[in-house]
Amino acid sequence: MRVRVRLGASEAHDVIVGRGLLGDLGALVAQHAPAHRCVVIADDVVAAHYADDAMTALHGSGFEPTLLTFPAGEASKTREQWARLTDLMLDDGCGRDTTVVALGGGVTGDLAGFVAAAFMRGVPLVQVPTSLLAMVDAAIGGKTAVDVPAGKNLVGAFHAPAVVIVDPDLLRTLPTVELRQGLAEAVKHGAISDAAHLDWIEFAAGPLLSADADALDELVRFSIQTKARIVSDDPWERAERATLNAGHTIAHALERCTRFSIPHGDAVAIGLVVEAVAGEAAAITEPGTAQRLAAVLATVGLPTRPPAIPAASVLEATRSDKKGRGGTIRYSLLRRPGQAARAGDGGWTQALPDDSVAAALDSLAR
Amino acid sequence: MRVRVRLGASEAHDVIVGRGLLGDLGALVAQHAPAHRCVVIADDVVAAHYADDAMTALHGSGFEPTLLTFPAGEASKTREQWARLTDLMLDDGCGRDTTVVALGGGVTGDLAGFVAAAFMRGVPLVQVPTSLLAMVDAAIGGKTAVDVPAGKNLVGAFHAPAVVIVDPDLLRTLPTVELRQGLAEAVKHGAISDAAHLDWIEFAAGPLLSADADALDELVRFSIQTKARIVSDDPWERAERATLNAGHTIAHALERCTRFSIPHGDAVAIGLVVEAVAGEAAAITEPGTAQRLAAVLATVGLPTRPPAIPAASVLEATRSDKKGRGGTIRYSLLRRPGQAARAGDGGWTQALPDDSVAAALDSLAR
Repeated sequence: MRVRVRLGASEAHDVIVGRGLLGDLGALVAQHAPAHRCVVIADDVVAAHYADDAMTALHGSGFEPTLLTFPAGEASKTREQWARLTDLMLDDGCGRDTTVVALGGGVTGDLAGFVAAAFMRGVPLVQVPTSLLAMVDAAIGGKTAVDVPAGKNLVGAFHAPAVVIVDPDLLRTLPTVELRQGLAEAVKHGAISDAAHLDWIEFAAGPLLSADADALDELVRFSIQTKARIVSDDPWERAERATLNAGHTIAHALERCTRFSIPHGDAVAIGLVVEAVAGEAAAITEPGTAQRLAAVLATVGLPTRPPAIPAASVLEATRSDKKGRGGTIRYSLLRRPGQAARAGDGGWTQALPDDSVAAALDSLAR
Repeated sequence: MRVRVRLGASEAHDVIVGRGLLGDLGALVAQHAPAHRCVVIADDVVAAHYADDAMTALHGSGFEPTLLTFPAGEASKTREQWARLTDLMLDDGCGRDTTVVALGGGVTGDLAGFVAAAFMRGVPLVQVPTSLLAMVDAAIGGKTAVDVPAGKNLVGAFHAPAVVIVDPDLLRTLPTVELRQGLAEAVKHGAISDAAHLDWIEFAAGPLLSADADALDELVRFSIQTKARIVSDDPWERAERATLNAGHTIAHALERCTRFSIPHGDAVAIGLVVEAVAGEAAAITEPGTAQRLAAVLATVGLPTRPPAIPAASVLEATRSDKKGRGGTIRYSLLRRPGQAARAGDGGWTQALPDDSVAAALDSLAR
């Protein structure tokens, strides 16, 4: 499957999905991002699983690739690690005519993506996501970033990949807890665009959680088509791309309140339910929406109730979200399961009274 | 005067030129880069001259601007200073809805430009160049960068400014030695596009070097129109933008060989002459071109002969230029004074035999 993602008037990239595609990496890089040099960036865990296959495939197409690794984990997503990887490329003699291959999950895509974005003012980037979260979300759309002391993803760039190569077979080595993180975003994709997809996730929960290749392949294809369609023509998040932030205003606040000890997918799952309850109270979201989302999320083992944090602290944390403009917090709400809510002003985000958000948090608290 | 610079299919920015425009900074920022917050970045020397005027103008249009300064000089153009300025903006509570004003010369434009490019994946940037070099060259076209141990400008981004505001009156405080650096690029603009402009620079050399406001105003307007025309439609330097690199292959090598103790404009002046002599030897450049360029450059007090460095070292240094692709060094040559040379393949760069470049260096050496 090949899906086109348009980013603005002049940029676009393909997402290519297929089992076993890692074996074709060399040919795909040669086709979509031909370059004199090729650098593969991966964390040490992913490198242990897949670096050999990736390097062999690149050699097979005439590249003499360099492998650069870094310690797995969000703690590596820093300006310091970005500078280290950049300097290693320079020491290795890489010039403008170099392609960067980001082989890994969301951390690798963000970090290696920013390396490519700022290397000699930008060199081609090939995203090869290895986690479900990265396949259905992070690797698509051109966002790159690192974390800084003031917060996550606050420094970075938009840098469209030359191509995104999604091989669902790579998910066979992904721990179940990591699979769930991607499932939260997949549920979100159904929640904003297609109620039938929610039904299917519920139906396929068993195979999905046991990493059944066919089930994951179908899940990944649906999410990528959904995200590609929404991101195309709205790369700068001025309109419909905002629907992809459903659940995320509360999710980001919960992550901040827990100092990011809560996994992102768990936070999104809880955020979807909290925002649906608050949306129902504000008569924006149809009654029963929160209950339906909670049922689907529970089927795949995701949490639906916020941890014990005072509602006032969560609300306070929403205000430091970088999407806040002039102090007004916007939510990307649902009309009903399978449909995002359009605001009265034609936009896809709207304000909510603090009281109804606090009431939603309190009513759901564990 | 208002000149439009097109950068690709979807991006463009205006360059506005006028004496006294610094006093209109607030209105111009409000018009071209409206934002909730506004941060002015300047080095300590420029801040002492112009920060008060800039802040007053911004206050007058309702902004509550923040001023951030750093020590003047190329030594500040680092990832560390970039990270410091970014963190100061975050500590100050700046969000996505912030405009960065780069008030200064080339170092400030590059450094503050990269701060804006990577701040929350890019916020609006207003370039207010205060040196002649920045007015006629660095501030236009969207290049931003910092230096790293491996070399200059190796990390950065293309980030189109929302607007470039050029106030030639700011040149009254610029030392003559700095004026000359900008004159080298102005001579280059004449050399690649208009022989009559070379005549005019020769004619106006006295007033230019004494910082006569009318002469500088005319010089700046010509150069900006020239650069804007060439950069438009070729922002990624795939075609005609390469003509702006005339003299620069040798200039960068001389800078590297002298560990950047030679000023950039001096290096460009020498590079223009060396490359013209070598181009004449290769029968690409018409005889007499090098002599004509040397005469104009000498009139404004710029050097035209390389320092005593072995030709082999200079040639070796050209090979580490980031524009080198697969080891072939390309030069942007002239056909004659006022006209760039088109290569046989239709491009604007071509290779030269090492021997003829070495002979040119040797024949000109002091």
